[in-house]
Amino acid sequence: MTLSKKPLKGMRELTPAEKRVEDYIVGKLREAGAVYGFEEYETPVLEPLELFLAKSGNELAVKQSYNFPDKGGRKLIMRPELTPSLARMVAAAGELIYPVKWMSFPVCYRYERPQRGRVREFMQFNLDILGVSGLDAELEVFLVLRRIMNSLGASPGQYIIRYSSRRLASEILSSCGMTEEEMAQAYAVIDKKDKLKPDEWEELVRETVKNERNADTVMKFASCSDPDSSWLRETAGGSEAYDELVKFSGMLKYAGITEAQFDAGVVRGLDYYTGIVFEVSDTGSKNRRAICGGGRYDNLVGMFGGQKVTGVGFGLGLLTLELFLKTYDLIPGGISGKHPVDIFLAVYSDEERTFAVNLAEKLRNAGVSVEIDITGKNLSKQFKIADRKLIGYVAVIGPVEAASGRITLKNMISGTETECEVSEVPGILIEGNLCEEAN
Amino acid sequence: MTLSKKPLKGMRELTPAEKRVEDYIVGKLREAGAVYGFEEYETPVLEPLELFLAKSGNELAVKQSYNFPDKGGRKLIMRPELTPSLARMVAAAGELIYPVKWMSFPVCYRYERPQRGRVREFMQFNLDILGVSGLDAELEVFLVLRRIMNSLGASPGQYIIRYSSRRLASEILSSCGMTEEEMAQAYAVIDKKDKLKPDEWEELVRETVKNERNADTVMKFASCSDPDSSWLRETAGGSEAYDELVKFSGMLKYAGITEAQFDAGVVRGLDYYTGIVFEVSDTGSKNRRAICGGGRYDNLVGMFGGQKVTGVGFGLGLLTLELFLKTYDLIPGGISGKHPVDIFLAVYSDEERTFAVNLAEKLRNAGVSVEIDITGKNLSKQFKIADRKLIGYVAVIGPVEAASGRITLKNMISGTETECEVSEVPGILIEGNLCEEAN
Repeated sequence: MTLSKKPLKGMRELTPAEKRVEDYIVGKLREAGAVYGFEEYETPVLEPLELFLAKSGNELAVKQSYNFPDKGGRKLIMRPELTPSLARMVAAAGELIYPVKWMSFPVCYRYERPQRGRVREFMQFNLDILGVSGLDAELEVFLVLRRIMNSLGASPGQYIIRYSSRRLASEILSSCGMTEEEMAQAYAVIDKKDKLKPDEWEELVRETVKNERNADTVMKFASCSDPDSSWLRETAGGSEAYDELVKFSGMLKYAGITEAQFDAGVVRGLDYYTGIVFEVSDTGSKNRRAICGGGRYDNLVGMFGGQKVTGVGFGLGLLTLELFLKTYDLIPGGISGKHPVDIFLAVYSDEERTFAVNLAEKLRNAGVSVEIDITGKNLSKQFKIADRKLIGYVAVIGPVEAASGRITLKNMISGTETECEVSEVPGILIEGNLCEEAN
Repeated sequence: MTLSKKPLKGMRELTPAEKRVEDYIVGKLREAGAVYGFEEYETPVLEPLELFLAKSGNELAVKQSYNFPDKGGRKLIMRPELTPSLARMVAAAGELIYPVKWMSFPVCYRYERPQRGRVREFMQFNLDILGVSGLDAELEVFLVLRRIMNSLGASPGQYIIRYSSRRLASEILSSCGMTEEEMAQAYAVIDKKDKLKPDEWEELVRETVKNERNADTVMKFASCSDPDSSWLRETAGGSEAYDELVKFSGMLKYAGITEAQFDAGVVRGLDYYTGIVFEVSDTGSKNRRAICGGGRYDNLVGMFGGQKVTGVGFGLGLLTLELFLKTYDLIPGGISGKHPVDIFLAVYSDEERTFAVNLAEKLRNAGVSVEIDITGKNLSKQFKIADRKLIGYVAVIGPVEAASGRITLKNMISGTETECEVSEVPGILIEGNLCEEAN
């Protein structure tokens, strides 16, 4: 029997070229978080199932997850999201300095049918502010999101940060007499608005929300895209939730976050949101899945007992972000193909090998990355390897070089040759790079 | 029911302070690989069980692993090691440029009883050279290992790279008539040499290797620590495997790798090794587990069909390395406590918030990391937050600052205050850091 050469469907396998693209994106995300003072943490992939049953709900924790009993019969889950583990960590930490500003890059698992933008093993970027109940926390999260998109080269017209208020939605729907259960059903329907045609969606609303007046309210609410719209003002004006929404909308204006837009149709799927909710998405039609989704939750650690902890946070899918960047051709061309080595040292014969190996070590000590030939093949084959690996400079180490200690650097693009001392190499490389950038 | 606040036993959960220590180590490993031209790749955590049954053997793939059927009945495993997945990737890649030099930081899973240096979820560093059959590949791997240990501040007396030859062992044991199965048993016994007292170990050898003369041979071989020892020369002198060992030992001398020492007792547990094998360990008695183990394998992708690919590689446990570094006090003191933020902006009242938020953005655009108050608490409480977070500089944004656009940076250690334009801030921070380093 020969084994399959493919990984399991939907799993994350990255060649060096693909890894460089992911590293580029991870680097930008990390940088964006760091300049606001977010710190990285990490939680396990394998968790007790009960933690996710309590926090993520049955749909995500059981139906859409990889879960199994261990050899001792304990029910385990491969995390489908990060938040329950964050809650556990915060509950366990004796003393934290609030506001806690944490970020993480968890690999998560969902047992779903793979499709564009959705796989079974995926890396996420999670960012949370804990212990702040005012809207300044939401504003900071929006600033981080804008910085992320800017730093990756996205222009404001290409993406949109849509936000709404779970609190406002709950206030309006409960005031027309809907029960908690009916409201949860209504959120699920609102969440489908963008995925269906208008008449299909209306039909679904009428099927789900039996009371005709309530169905009208759900549709009217979900279609609001201006906090100042007359229907919204008449229905909710003067309530705390409405005032909060108007205030937040003003804060976004003052901070110049023009990419953000109110859209009551954004309610987000997860149960634990209680205030402002938001998502980042492509304004074009190619990427239907949100790049990022998040919101305010008011009692992160409740189920562990102890004090209430409020928070605002989001999860951002690296795959959906990458698809977005590819759509707008925003991944710098050189990244995936760039080989990280400065110099290839070709070795003339075994006689010079000891000299060459020690020379390579000296260069590396000076911060130069060096690939030395280890195949023992002839020089022309060695040059071919350097060429195929796209290495910028080659130096041949032969009897002359071993005797004199001086080497000749050949620029593989221009063909220029420079004879120099080993100590001069770093300077020549820097100069060479400057020339290339200037061209 | 309240949920447990602890992760499952043996799982990897890192607070920001712990994550900074891991990041420090990962950074050094990555850097060491990169200066030799190694590129990073990534493979899935979840794999078909059959891949590991074929490559890692029953002990590791079934008994010591997390394995379970998915909802479709397919048998899955959470990878206990990386090599089988690497083999699959290489077999699948149509065209690779040899020598392939790849590295990865997989998180792996083993269902074993946790103890010092051994947990159930752990990060490894894997590094492999593929497609080179000569000893220059082994030499390069040893150079990388030395660079790793050096760059982390370890001195040659604190650690040792012990190496042996599976090929030589196999030659000697088969020449006294031992079968493949008996040899595998012998390797397993040799592998236990360091873990048992001398007389206990001898007893185990005599129990396992029934033939008395063969048992003597196993013990004599395992005790060799000089390729030039008379017993070894008499027993194997002139054979290819012996000559190779002598040659490699000479190469290590020429390259000045004095930390490397021949020790025939190193055979390594995994089945697929065929040549030089090695491990890195603490010379002291506190850390008994090897930090790193590896060797040459001559047919990585055989089970997938297609051409033979030879290789040399190792797996290094980040936890055992960290324990080693802690034993010798080699983790720089500042790392775990260091908060990554340059400036805390205290906000006098809500009147100045818009100005402060936009000022913070300007500073971040200039590469300065800024935490701005989002609690809305009074100034003395804000100062306390900055103080507890160990942030180096604080600037209060009040009516005067908002009107003039100038801010006053307070150095929280020296107490010095500097009034300046926003554009001057990066320069002042650099100067401040230089002063601190000079003290």
